[in-house]
Amino acid sequence: MDYSKFTDLKRENKDLINLNPLQTAGKLTKEAQKVLIEFGDGYSVCDFCDGVLDDIEKPPVKTFTREILPKFLNCDVVRITNGAREGMFIIMHSLTNPKDTILVDENAHYSCLVAAERCRINVVKVPNSKCPIDAIDVANYEPLIKKHKPKLILLTYPEGNYGNLPDAKKLGAIAKKYNVPYALNCAYSIGRMPVNMKELGADFVVASGHKSMSASGPVGLIGMNKKYENTVLAKSKDYPNKVIECLGCTSRGATIATLMASFPEVEKRVKNWDQELKKAQWFCSEVEKLGFVLIGQKPHKHDLMFFRTDVLYEISKKHKKRGYFLYKELKKRGIIGIKPGHTKSFKLSTFGISRKDLVRVVKAFSEIIEENRKLLA
Amino acid sequence: MDYSKFTDLKRENKDLINLNPLQTAGKLTKEAQKVLIEFGDGYSVCDFCDGVLDDIEKPPVKTFTREILPKFLNCDVVRITNGAREGMFIIMHSLTNPKDTILVDENAHYSCLVAAERCRINVVKVPNSKCPIDAIDVANYEPLIKKHKPKLILLTYPEGNYGNLPDAKKLGAIAKKYNVPYALNCAYSIGRMPVNMKELGADFVVASGHKSMSASGPVGLIGMNKKYENTVLAKSKDYPNKVIECLGCTSRGATIATLMASFPEVEKRVKNWDQELKKAQWFCSEVEKLGFVLIGQKPHKHDLMFFRTDVLYEISKKHKKRGYFLYKELKKRGIIGIKPGHTKSFKLSTFGISRKDLVRVVKAFSEIIEENRKLLA
Repeated sequence: MDYSKFTDLKRENKDLINLNPLQTAGKLTKEAQKVLIEFGDGYSVCDFCDGVLDDIEKPPVKTFTREILPKFLNCDVVRITNGAREGMFIIMHSLTNPKDTILVDENAHYSCLVAAERCRINVVKVPNSKCPIDAIDVANYEPLIKKHKPKLILLTYPEGNYGNLPDAKKLGAIAKKYNVPYALNCAYSIGRMPVNMKELGADFVVASGHKSMSASGPVGLIGMNKKYENTVLAKSKDYPNKVIECLGCTSRGATIATLMASFPEVEKRVKNWDQELKKAQWFCSEVEKLGFVLIGQKPHKHDLMFFRTDVLYEISKKHKKRGYFLYKELKKRGIIGIKPGHTKSFKLSTFGISRKDLVRVVKAFSEIIEENRKLLA
Repeated sequence: MDYSKFTDLKRENKDLINLNPLQTAGKLTKEAQKVLIEFGDGYSVCDFCDGVLDDIEKPPVKTFTREILPKFLNCDVVRITNGAREGMFIIMHSLTNPKDTILVDENAHYSCLVAAERCRINVVKVPNSKCPIDAIDVANYEPLIKKHKPKLILLTYPEGNYGNLPDAKKLGAIAKKYNVPYALNCAYSIGRMPVNMKELGADFVVASGHKSMSASGPVGLIGMNKKYENTVLAKSKDYPNKVIECLGCTSRGATIATLMASFPEVEKRVKNWDQELKKAQWFCSEVEKLGFVLIGQKPHKHDLMFFRTDVLYEISKKHKKRGYFLYKELKKRGIIGIKPGHTKSFKLSTFGISRKDLVRVVKAFSEIIEENRKLLA
């Protein structure tokens, strides 16, 4: 068998402008690239481990997880997980029994619903009366809490289709009133924008290192209130230093090393979130001039934006490459991240992309429309 | 806060001879180091994904997981997981309900017992009458299968303390006789030595990329018989292409890329297992001349070996650095991997270490004993 395709794997398009919301905030920092090699080997962070990942001092996992991250998120306890979805599963699994009910916003990421299925629990979806134009109205949780007495309520902050930011703080007050554990899925917020768990009144946050913290995945974290530590992070009866829900240890190498190495830069960019947001809003106004319509909160509060793009769809109907023309034309101009075939509507993210590169993106859309204007007749 | 310790993380001792059994077969190949950077960014393997990790063709995850790995292991289906322990949890969780019973060999890795605790199931340990001198006698499973009617039986192949290889094939026949699902924990075998699932009569194998397949973790795999595919890899009712137990996707970047890049080299070394084994046996005979006593199968059938080292323990009693003298003396000679403080007995692995370097290790032990011989009086 010819194995050259395995030994010489190349990532096509690595250096193009990438608008894929999954990937814009997961790009490694220079510091993370360096430690990626340094800690690339299997079990590399375990050189000086005494049995507990979070207590390792070389590299400084202990300071990172026990001091820096709790402060960063304003929560009591942080644990490293293999990702946001794994964190969400840990919370659900430790707080529920099969057949229990939880509430989940109807814009939740599919993995939260799959995690609930894995727990064999019932999910009641909290509807969004104004979906998809606005964020979910968290007041909709209250009657459902009264009716179902859920073991947990979950809110996606923001959701990954429209980038709408719901009023998490208001839901915090509702959760407190009914004394129900409240988890925020922050896969698209922690590492991009400020998230203050206690201020929002949440009991849990989950984050994704590879999605929003410039880490090489799979890696993420859970932040929580002390109140739930003994339940969610319960230790094994036979192995008293091993957390059951983490199966002992989670991140066992380069993933946690890159999360740490990128952190100073991540902390800095979070402080500059207002600039990042202004850039997104400016981009939005530019493409609106081309006929794109933002579907979601206005003014938008996140770098993830969903556009209805009738003009591109009209072109696709008559273009000889049909729906694929857009992908090909953008790629020709050094731009990727919009799914091949999509022209009617799509999402994109401006996170971490310079204004100069975004000007190129706007120009590319504009050119593509102009070059095909004859098809719009 | 001074963040330099995060942005400039260094792995001390990276270039020393490392005898830690956790790490010897997890060292990246040159090819894996290259793709580590190429695919370092978060969600890097998702550039051309249509929603199913195992169907990605660029990079060639599909060929790798659907053709190459099943052939390598002689099993029907392979799925990528976040590690062996996560694979074991997936099998247990999908085959059992809370309060069910499973059988586990008493030498099992702690993470298997923690996984069972996470499933809220009962574990009956299969005792080893000859432990720790020999491998577990798999005949001991039979009466316990009759008595407990377990939902699953699990065998560690080999276990991680003594490197003893039990008669997995014999247990395969027993499992077949009683029609009970049979899982092998191959974290210390797959990637080091040949494992032929069907020949051993197992229904499942789990492997660890970071432990034994020269991958950057966390990553691993499950191999299984077709018979169990629909149960263990059941799809979500609402998301018909997402595997519930994998929460959709598992490996989302460099981890799977390094597993693929190292695979050709891993396949080659597995074919040369008899040479690797001869080297381990030679090393064993050399340190036995120094007074070390192998605790385990003889002749030994694995590179992981456990030694009782009375001579070092006697020195430690009178040495001014007490038990830490050995660690310090070895490190001075460029050798690490034996836990600081251990002198009475310890495990080590010779995997992937050249004969020349192993000669250095033997010489180091010999010198350390000679230099301290006066303390043995």
